[in-house]
Amino acid sequence: MSKEKTGVLMIGLNGATANTTVVGTKVLLKKLVPDYGMITQSPLFAGHPLIKLDQLVFGGWDLHSHNAYDAAVRNKVLEENWIKAVRKDIEKIRPMKGIVTSHDVDFLKSLDNIKPVKTRKAQLEAIIKDIRSFKKANGLKKTVVVFLASPLKCVKPGRIHKDIKNLKRAIATNDPAVTSGMLYALAAIETDSPYIDFTPNITLELPALADYAAEKKVPLAGQDGNTGQTMMKTLIGQMLKIKNLRLAGWYSTNILGNMDGKVLALPEHCVLKMKDKLDVLSAVLGYGGFDNIVDIRYYLPRGDNKEAWDNIDFLGWLGMPMSCKINWLGRDSILAAPLVLDLIRLLEYAHRRGEGGVQGQLAMFFKHPLGAHVRGFFDEYTLLREHYSKPDEAYG
Amino acid sequence: MSKEKTGVLMIGLNGATANTTVVGTKVLLKKLVPDYGMITQSPLFAGHPLIKLDQLVFGGWDLHSHNAYDAAVRNKVLEENWIKAVRKDIEKIRPMKGIVTSHDVDFLKSLDNIKPVKTRKAQLEAIIKDIRSFKKANGLKKTVVVFLASPLKCVKPGRIHKDIKNLKRAIATNDPAVTSGMLYALAAIETDSPYIDFTPNITLELPALADYAAEKKVPLAGQDGNTGQTMMKTLIGQMLKIKNLRLAGWYSTNILGNMDGKVLALPEHCVLKMKDKLDVLSAVLGYGGFDNIVDIRYYLPRGDNKEAWDNIDFLGWLGMPMSCKINWLGRDSILAAPLVLDLIRLLEYAHRRGEGGVQGQLAMFFKHPLGAHVRGFFDEYTLLREHYSKPDEAYG
Amino acid sequence: MSKEKTGVLMIGLNGATANTTVVGTKVLLKKLVPDYGMITQSPLFAGHPLIKLDQLVFGGWDLHSHNAYDAAVRNKVLEENWIKAVRKDIEKIRPMKGIVTSHDVDFLKSLDNIKPVKTRKAQLEAIIKDIRSFKKANGLKKTVVVFLASPLKCVKPGRIHKDIKNLKRAIATNDPAVTSGMLYALAAIETDSPYIDFTPNITLELPALADYAAEKKVPLAGQDGNTGQTMMKTLIGQMLKIKNLRLAGWYSTNILGNMDGKVLALPEHCVLKMKDKLDVLSAVLGYGGFDNIVDIRYYLPRGDNKEAWDNIDFLGWLGMPMSCKINWLGRDSILAAPLVLDLIRLLEYAHRRGEGGVQGQLAMFFKHPLGAHVRGFFDEYTLLREHYSKPDEAYG
Amino acid sequence: MSKEKTGVLMIGLNGATANTTVVGTKVLLKKLVPDYGMITQSPLFAGHPLIKLDQLVFGGWDLHSHNAYDAAVRNKVLEENWIKAVRKDIEKIRPMKGIVTSHDVDFLKSLDNIKPVKTRKAQLEAIIKDIRSFKKANGLKKTVVVFLASPLKCVKPGRIHKDIKNLKRAIATNDPAVTSGMLYALAAIETDSPYIDFTPNITLELPALADYAAEKKVPLAGQDGNTGQTMMKTLIGQMLKIKNLRLAGWYSTNILGNMDGKVLALPEHCVLKMKDKLDVLSAVLGYGGFDNIVDIRYYLPRGDNKEAWDNIDFLGWLGMPMSCKINWLGRDSILAAPLVLDLIRLLEYAHRRGEGGVQGQLAMFFKHPLGAHVRGFFDEYTLLREHYSKPDEAYG
Repeated sequence: MSKEKTGVLMIGLNGATANTTVVGTKVLLKKLVPDYGMITQSPLFAGHPLIKLDQLVFGGWDLHSHNAYDAAVRNKVLEENWIKAVRKDIEKIRPMKGIVTSHDVDFLKSLDNIKPVKTRKAQLEAIIKDIRSFKKANGLKKTVVVFLASPLKCVKPGRIHKDIKNLKRAIATNDPAVTSGMLYALAAIETDSPYIDFTPNITLELPALADYAAEKKVPLAGQDGNTGQTMMKTLIGQMLKIKNLRLAGWYSTNILGNMDGKVLALPEHCVLKMKDKLDVLSAVLGYGGFDNIVDIRYYLPRGDNKEAWDNIDFLGWLGMPMSCKINWLGRDSILAAPLVLDLIRLLEYAHRRGEGGVQGQLAMFFKHPLGAHVRGFFDEYTLLREHYSKPDEAYG
Repeated sequence: MSKEKTGVLMIGLNGATANTTVVGTKVLLKKLVPDYGMITQSPLFAGHPLIKLDQLVFGGWDLHSHNAYDAAVRNKVLEENWIKAVRKDIEKIRPMKGIVTSHDVDFLKSLDNIKPVKTRKAQLEAIIKDIRSFKKANGLKKTVVVFLASPLKCVKPGRIHKDIKNLKRAIATNDPAVTSGMLYALAAIETDSPYIDFTPNITLELPALADYAAEKKVPLAGQDGNTGQTMMKTLIGQMLKIKNLRLAGWYSTNILGNMDGKVLALPEHCVLKMKDKLDVLSAVLGYGGFDNIVDIRYYLPRGDNKEAWDNIDFLGWLGMPMSCKINWLGRDSILAAPLVLDLIRLLEYAHRRGEGGVQGQLAMFFKHPLGAHVRGFFDEYTLLREHYSKPDEAYG
Repeated sequence: MSKEKTGVLMIGLNGATANTTVVGTKVLLKKLVPDYGMITQSPLFAGHPLIKLDQLVFGGWDLHSHNAYDAAVRNKVLEENWIKAVRKDIEKIRPMKGIVTSHDVDFLKSLDNIKPVKTRKAQLEAIIKDIRSFKKANGLKKTVVVFLASPLKCVKPGRIHKDIKNLKRAIATNDPAVTSGMLYALAAIETDSPYIDFTPNITLELPALADYAAEKKVPLAGQDGNTGQTMMKTLIGQMLKIKNLRLAGWYSTNILGNMDGKVLALPEHCVLKMKDKLDVLSAVLGYGGFDNIVDIRYYLPRGDNKEAWDNIDFLGWLGMPMSCKINWLGRDSILAAPLVLDLIRLLEYAHRRGEGGVQGQLAMFFKHPLGAHVRGFFDEYTLLREHYSKPDEAYG
Repeated sequence: MSKEKTGVLMIGLNGATANTTVVGTKVLLKKLVPDYGMITQSPLFAGHPLIKLDQLVFGGWDLHSHNAYDAAVRNKVLEENWIKAVRKDIEKIRPMKGIVTSHDVDFLKSLDNIKPVKTRKAQLEAIIKDIRSFKKANGLKKTVVVFLASPLKCVKPGRIHKDIKNLKRAIATNDPAVTSGMLYALAAIETDSPYIDFTPNITLELPALADYAAEKKVPLAGQDGNTGQTMMKTLIGQMLKIKNLRLAGWYSTNILGNMDGKVLALPEHCVLKMKDKLDVLSAVLGYGGFDNIVDIRYYLPRGDNKEAWDNIDFLGWLGMPMSCKINWLGRDSILAAPLVLDLIRLLEYAHRRGEGGVQGQLAMFFKHPLGAHVRGFFDEYTLLREHYSKPDEAYG
């Protein structure tokens, strides 16, 4: 097992998920709390030489300049006394200045941490420079980059996204179809940094980036972290399929009061997430034709505690209707953070094992998994289990 | 594939599950409704020469003498117009007289269909004679026997249940530790009839019967049909395990207003069912120490429409508590009947394939599966899938 | 008590609510079922000489020409055997041709029952003529008119709606701000027929109509029948107020699969209903500032069985947050029909008592009650109770 | 308005409700939080000269000797930082030694604060002495006594409970049918202290105590504080009655993990509470004949956060079945404490106004209200409102 440290650079470092990942990891390392929720801590990975949490060095970009302590106090996800217990460690973690294109959220206020470069070319170069500086400053050989900022506005994939040559030319001409997400991803690939998109952006679907990463042997994983309701859909959906019960309709509604809820209430941002949430059922079941509704509403009293209510109508023997209603009282960032850590560890590991390009075996981590050809909770888990069935000390 | 008919003899023929199985099959065969809900109709069994529904000849025992039409009207499970559409077919189906020991439900009223024999030896012989007569009268080579009567009062397994010699001696001396369920099961084995216990009786756990059936190459399956809430426990429980989320407590309550609900409200009958429902979680998760409560209440307005409410408390990353509440609006007999048919078809098939004794691959059909060494929805399904992975025309 | 019959003319006669009112009344009169659900059958009205159900003669308008039997079969609200039991009575009930303006629903298909007159003036005259003909044909002295059609598109109240002179002038010039609802209401007033608007149209809010009805002593009642979720809001809301618990947020969602659901999914129709549903809480509580969300979604599997899920967040002592979630499994038309009958009986009674104009004491029947100065389930009920506290045989 | 302080002596001072009342009041007085949840803070009481919270001096008895700070830390009802903020104030509040008879809970462990007197006579005298000493030590003219300990085992009312003479004789002979609750209540009456029973004991139903208090002009209030589920029953029940909807069944289950949950899980203690919870519906509706089930289960993960799930089946027009499910996520002590304060203030006020004996106008505070002849949320509130309709400065 490598004893070397690895950098983790997150886009949206002060957002609820990234900040919870950073601060929660410090809390864990103080052994104040149990470490449930990480799949990489389960017996399946017992024999694999994954990097340890204390080998991660956190940093990243954000459009607000708060340090991680201030951000944690604002995010109100973690308990106050935990935050205080690690205050010294996390006050030092400050975001680098981020980049902005026209696809970023409009209503963000009092942004005080934006790079003063305007062209996409200059932005790309600045990000690459940031990554290299971070490595150097921290004496690191490797970084993993994770996109955790608010979902970007939709972009239609076009000719410029087809291959890396076109994309680079588009960047050179400051083409408006190049998003900040694409620039971060390209910067990661160029610096040999594994890249994860935990949001519903199309970045990693683009051949320009996916093929280039495969060619350069940089592992990628995406997209749209699968934390609660969609995971339950892959689970209940697969049960219905196995039991030969027929889905007649599924109505899902979500209420949450964090920034993610606010952005997803904007139609131009939520299209992809909604589509991901809607598509999954047909993919799992292998048929369509049922009523399928997903609502996401911003609801202040809930804060980061995402709540979902699902009504599932299905037909049993003789076509008789039955239903099942699920009320999920989750915590958005607490469900997301361990998945982010799992992905970081697994991509770092993939990098050591020489596995480049999209990592299809990680399907169960995503609402819209790239590179996988099955859907359904158990089938996705089987993908993972089989990929890691043989512990391989050789890569230690 | 065999074109021959097979007899299906059910204990408790007029109860909601058995009667729904009989009448619903006739409705299906008239093509009035879709046939969702049977696992043996799913692609997994596409290449297996299972017996068809129109090859089943139904009969059995009940302590009430109604014919299947009258019973269907009373049970109020199926739609009136369906019952009317098959009236002619089902009016002819009348139960044989049943046997009673002190383990049967006390409060059953106006029983009018009890065999006038008192000793266990005479009861056993009468049942064997019934099976043989039924075969003869219907020109059948084979019967499958299914226990679907109300759960019996608890019996403590003792020396007499250890081997078949002891059991037969106990029957000869009319030992009170021999239940009607044991007599039916033994009669089945003696007549080479596969036997299913769909209720929480301990019958098939007894070495006396299990070993004897193995020796005689008679397939057995049990126990306690896994229709709704417990199935959800194996499903959600396995998800929690895979996701490394820690169960802190699970509170389940059930309300139903059919005879099953009435019997399960009696402490001396419900012990086993409760135990089955309670044990499953630890078995799936591999640990205990969480609060685990199951209530079953008889609630008249619900009738056969079993409703369950589950509150699941679990701990996520950093030990933070979350919960999930499930309200299941099922239909008891509509969920049970297709499983009964699946089991009949699979045991008939096992008989042809020479598979005797307890059929462990059928774990997913039971709350307390016999002969299986895994628990968890997906692991149980994998057992089934692997057992039937190769279609085998040889047994057609 | 009057022994004379009264005509009931419904706009939207074949819609689920009107049709259920007509057919259900016939079923009730056959004494096939109990008559729960009508407030006018409760002890409060024991001494009041209200008209009896068997004195009502049903008719009305619809854009589809089905008779009431065919409509009942399509609506699937009532049990088939009930519909058959009254088939002879209801086959004779056929709608008159309706009128259409640009405010009516666009997507209605295969309309086959529209009056071939185009100008608003001609439409008004045709409706008046219809009412008179219906009276004559049935030997009636009085009719009550009830608007039960799909909600109309929003209209902004303007100068032409200020007084009756302006409105009549607008009708004469075929002004597009005159809706079909206004024409039906005016026709009712002109024929001395009490008028009820059970939908969220603004018709009865307009001074032109409300003042004119008061002047002509014609009783009016509206608007937007208060059947399920909103009624629960007035109930729970008033409890919170009395108990001094502070509302922090209320999220409501509705799923239903009938025509009402389809129309309310169209933004231009649902505005008013949503506003009614949203306004009620502040009115009951006497303060705002809480998160307040209402969704209505068309969901096919539910049919007429309207389901609602409400999440209520409130603050108790020391500001500690608690919540209450309500899952309401109602039946839209079954809840609405008895209210329609109550309103018909009470408006007919008001007419006899000389009570003209908007009947504020009927607040509890409406989501947006006209003419009442209190909100809250119990306060609204107190209005009703006090108004009818003295049985008055004089009006018999 | 009196400026004098009043003593509040609670039996069970360290239990969740009493301790939350004490500590929460201190938190409120520091203006750290809002004061929602007290009815006596609502406009109805605006003109009444009720005693203020800062005039209350807290004390009482408990079988554990912790001070109020230690108890608050153990009870885990209030936020840690609140408890710390008032630590100095509450560390000084220590319970006096309590008395125990055979009706008290058996399983309490490590009791370290029991009076070393054994006979009931000596116990009574000791309590009276305690009350007098507390007054003297704090310079008080008046105390209010509140029973908030675990519910006692059932006692059958007999001859000795008929009048005060018999009761005193029974105390003198140490009759086992005299409970600790009766001794505390009698001590209160003898010291002219208003007495509240917030638990389901029968104490205040006994003529011996109720008549004696009336004679001595000591106000009493009871019994069994109405905090959550039962309150919802009086609310929903009264709505069903007014709307003429017919109740077909009501299934209620409660899960909670505090001491109250533990005691109520013991059959000999829960009988009364269950009966109260069951009786209320028939009393509100005016009829019986529906299925009526109440379960209370001790469930550790919930702690003091009492959760309830109610399934309500009702019949609407034409007898069609509908249902409503309510999931109540309350906080036991946070709902109870403001009611305790309301009752203290109102009984102190009644004492000033010369209102002795059972105060029937306080029905809405109790599951089993004494001295009231109506049931139903609104009717009970009307009782309260009418009693306090005229502010009366004369009693200031």
